[in-house]
Amino acid sequence: MMTNDPTDGFRDKDGYDLDSGYLKQVLKAVEAQDAQRIFEMFEPLHPADIADILEQIGADARRALVHLYGTEFDGDILSELDEGLRDEVVGYLRPDVLADAVRDMDSDDVVDLLEDLDESQHSAILDALEEDDRDAARQALSYPEYSAGRLMQREFVKVPQDWTVGQTIDMMRTSKELPDQFYHVFLVTPDDTPAGYVTLGRLLSSNRNTALSSVTEDSFRSFELDEEEGDVAYAFNQYHLISAPVVDTNGRLVGVITIDDAMAVLDEEHEEDMLRMAGAGEGSLSDGVMETTWQRLPWLGVNLVTAIIASLVIAVFEATIQTLVALAVLMPIVASMGGNAGTQSMAVAVRGLATRDLTGANVWRVIRRETLVGMFNGMIFALVMGVVGYVWFGSLMLAGVIAAAMVINLVVAGLSGIGLPALLDRLGVDPALASGTFVTTVTDVVGFAAFLGLATMLLL
Amino acid sequence: MMTNDPTDGFRDKDGYDLDSGYLKQVLKAVEAQDAQRIFEMFEPLHPADIADILEQIGADARRALVHLYGTEFDGDILSELDEGLRDEVVGYLRPDVLADAVRDMDSDDVVDLLEDLDESQHSAILDALEEDDRDAARQALSYPEYSAGRLMQREFVKVPQDWTVGQTIDMMRTSKELPDQFYHVFLVTPDDTPAGYVTLGRLLSSNRNTALSSVTEDSFRSFELDEEEGDVAYAFNQYHLISAPVVDTNGRLVGVITIDDAMAVLDEEHEEDMLRMAGAGEGSLSDGVMETTWQRLPWLGVNLVTAIIASLVIAVFEATIQTLVALAVLMPIVASMGGNAGTQSMAVAVRGLATRDLTGANVWRVIRRETLVGMFNGMIFALVMGVVGYVWFGSLMLAGVIAAAMVINLVVAGLSGIGLPALLDRLGVDPALASGTFVTTVTDVVGFAAFLGLATMLLL
Repeated sequence: MMTNDPTDGFRDKDGYDLDSGYLKQVLKAVEAQDAQRIFEMFEPLHPADIADILEQIGADARRALVHLYGTEFDGDILSELDEGLRDEVVGYLRPDVLADAVRDMDSDDVVDLLEDLDESQHSAILDALEEDDRDAARQALSYPEYSAGRLMQREFVKVPQDWTVGQTIDMMRTSKELPDQFYHVFLVTPDDTPAGYVTLGRLLSSNRNTALSSVTEDSFRSFELDEEEGDVAYAFNQYHLISAPVVDTNGRLVGVITIDDAMAVLDEEHEEDMLRMAGAGEGSLSDGVMETTWQRLPWLGVNLVTAIIASLVIAVFEATIQTLVALAVLMPIVASMGGNAGTQSMAVAVRGLATRDLTGANVWRVIRRETLVGMFNGMIFALVMGVVGYVWFGSLMLAGVIAAAMVINLVVAGLSGIGLPALLDRLGVDPALASGTFVTTVTDVVGFAAFLGLATMLLL
Repeated sequence: MMTNDPTDGFRDKDGYDLDSGYLKQVLKAVEAQDAQRIFEMFEPLHPADIADILEQIGADARRALVHLYGTEFDGDILSELDEGLRDEVVGYLRPDVLADAVRDMDSDDVVDLLEDLDESQHSAILDALEEDDRDAARQALSYPEYSAGRLMQREFVKVPQDWTVGQTIDMMRTSKELPDQFYHVFLVTPDDTPAGYVTLGRLLSSNRNTALSSVTEDSFRSFELDEEEGDVAYAFNQYHLISAPVVDTNGRLVGVITIDDAMAVLDEEHEEDMLRMAGAGEGSLSDGVMETTWQRLPWLGVNLVTAIIASLVIAVFEATIQTLVALAVLMPIVASMGGNAGTQSMAVAVRGLATRDLTGANVWRVIRRETLVGMFNGMIFALVMGVVGYVWFGSLMLAGVIAAAMVINLVVAGLSGIGLPALLDRLGVDPALASGTFVTTVTDVVGFAAFLGLATMLLL
């Protein structure tokens, strides 16, 4: 990537990661209270990069940097900042700087900011806005969290559906309040219902007397105010939307969602899925030690309970282990292979559910596939582990037991790896939230029970 | 979401997932060889939805459906189709249908299609193209896989940098070869170097005699041909780009990448990360049983080796277990808690590396945090498990051993959970690829060794 950006010398070979050299220079300037140097360093940077710098330094330096940067701090930096840090940084800003920053922001960014702040900070932001914008922000906050209503911006271009290209261009030339970025002109009926849209490219390449209605695009999708933002992001990706109208319960056009916002939502949803699957909560890299400890604690607690359940299964076979201690050596292998195979199936399931590729229409086919895959890989590794077990402990019977337990556990792993997420999804629970711990509990319990149970029956 | 789409009655309440009812109707029509019914059902559907239907049915029905749909099958459906199915479906298409489909596609989509096909199928596609397009496709394939050169499209609008708004609009009105979708007009110098861009909105709202150079956008980033597509997608998301130019080694404008392509890449990268972290390879839901079995096998093999390593650690302490069989019951708990805590740290690390939030500038701070979090959660669960162990087995010493092992393993989990992915990344290996298995190997080995080792020292 090429820019004329002073951080270039401090980036890795891809040009994306800031290295510690650049940050050290920033920190040095902060320590020296050298505001001028900060201005110079930040002047050519994109607000997203300034936000990254704020995220990567410690809290004390962050406060000092925000103070030094002073009135240069603008709304775009706030928009780009990690959600977990926004209330901290807003707290550092002088009221006049905050007011200026907020006034520059698009309506969707203001709402996005308000969402992440304490109620007590709301009035500082809302007071900074002009009356119109304040009312609009309040209105947006009345829509459900993570809804299309919160995601949309109120800045868009609409024209009567019976207009011509010429009328539209003349209107745009004289209008003083066009959005910063827009890609489509929306056509509305007299009662303000969206009736289609024309791309700006089409508008520019058509004659002035062309009727707009003759150059509208085929595919047209609108969203309702209370639709979930995850569904909106999915539709943008699935149907290659660039911008799409949002309508109220009466079908009237009230806002527009653009693809860059949808892309950010898609990215957040992925983050959520990945962290939830690992039981790591909603943490961010800038969270502190204690905050992170508490985020991680609940799923570790659940895991402790499930680990104790697996131990209780082992406890049932204490006498068997006492007689043949080799079983204690081998039993984690069966459990581990099951856990791994189950995690494989689970990742496929969670991903398939997120992308809506795993649906009621093919779930049984996929469950069948995962079970068969478990069976085949179970047989392959049963053979391998049977040989290893025989060579290691010299007992054909023991080798047979571990081989049989392997097949059983990998079949169960495939079945539960796909079945549990699908079940959670059907129950309305996010499949990423709980699948990991539950799947490995099943494979631990089944793995220990099958191996030790078969051993008790066949070896004693 | 609102559309006038006949599948609406067959979708879940969000309006996104096709239920099995609609697919059954499609399959019924296929079985009855009722092409007319298929045309009627598919006519209002988006190509992405038709592709989804093809993905969700079995291979036999897929072949029959493609035959029935015949000449209606177009390039957009091919573009939307899961990569793993493209060669199969291309094989079903009549040569003339394939040729028509390919001629309609944008240059980037043709390249994307060629990438996923066997060499033997290349000529069928390339022959269908006109000479210009064929040369361009060959050229694109000469760029590295997953590079900006492959991702870009050659259809874009460029004008000399000294033109006015009026000249540009006149050119567009008379040009016959404008791209289907475009958002920016690129300004080039006489030697074809991109010098900036003007949004179409700005073009439409400016007077005809305005110089283009006075209405260009501030932020301007261009990509090189061999830049990785993942880096391109990151830049689009980070800097809210809508479209960006691609330049050759001489700095000449050769193509344009648009945000919808970048969004698709971002989505694929996420899928890759999630499946790789789980050791599930590059599988897709439409892959068959045997294909999936082979995809899953390598990491299960690696896991078997690491599980055997953990078992060898247990084997060292066989005599201890023989004496105190309660150790065999409790030892999986320590390993499981370590594995879970390690996975939490690892997910945060893999995600942070993917989003470039975890960099050389803050990696030590995050390693310190994760280690401390491991220590604190280790102490909390040491207390819990110490009490449980005492109540269960009545031995204060045993309770102390499990508590101590818990702290040790959770500290190691935090350290390796963040450290291993960071190390792999530094070594140029995708951190998602191998971290999962390696982290749990470390926590298994340390968990067993700490628990059984302490027990041997203190309890015997």
